[in-house]
Amino acid sequence: MSPDHLSTTFTALADPTRRAILARLATGEASVTELAEPFAMSLPAISKHLKVLERAGLIARGREAQWRPCRLEAGPLKDAADWLEHYRRFWEQSFDRLEEYLHKWQKKEKKHGRKQRKN
Amino acid sequence: MSPDHLSTTFTALADPTRRAILARLATGEASVTELAEPFAMSLPAISKHLKVLERAGLIARGREAQWRPCRLEAGPLKDAADWLEHYRRFWEQSFDRLEEYLHKWQKKEKKHGRKQRKN
Repeated sequence: MSPDHLSTTFTALADPTRRAILARLATGEASVTELAEPFAMSLPAISKHLKVLERAGLIARGREAQWRPCRLEAGPLKDAADWLEHYRRFWEQSFDRLEEYLHKWQKKEKKHGRKQRKN
Repeated sequence: MSPDHLSTTFTALADPTRRAILARLATGEASVTELAEPFAMSLPAISKHLKVLERAGLIARGREAQWRPCRLEAGPLKDAADWLEHYRRFWEQSFDRLEEYLHKWQKKEKKHGRKQRKN
């Protein structure tokens, strides 16, 4: 996958309506009208979002002229997840540091609590 | 994390230069000049990219006036990975389907190969 594909995927995901459309499609195929229902948006506005998702290869559409259901295509999501995976050790490190800090803080609090009881 | 934070993260990741900056910072802190080196880009152009990354919380910068090293902040990457994780079953399904298809195809090829040898 070239860097441009990854940029196209991240651009497509950088919008809450488009992410909500993907979440809806995760429950099954849907027509444009069905996808537009939960949003206070016109059909042309939804169609624009669908075009962005389609160009990014995140959705595919049926070929029937009347009923062109959209369905989720997860390939580009996997590539995005694979890219992010390289950074996992960094967020796990920050979590470890936070845990260590909380542990130290709890020990300090306990010590302080004991001192208060002694007085 | 509100949907807007996720949109800001994905927007920041939707550029190959910004992803390359993050990859460089994964190897350790760096100054703006050091970050600019591998790119055929002016310092102001790199600074613009750094501002996008900083606003998205993907990097933090030191406070020293002269030497303000940038470092990676992985929190928003974790949130993006968590969002993508919801779709894992879809790309694993497609992989299973591909594997199944290849398996069937190999069986067919083998059968065909045996037939050819018989003739």
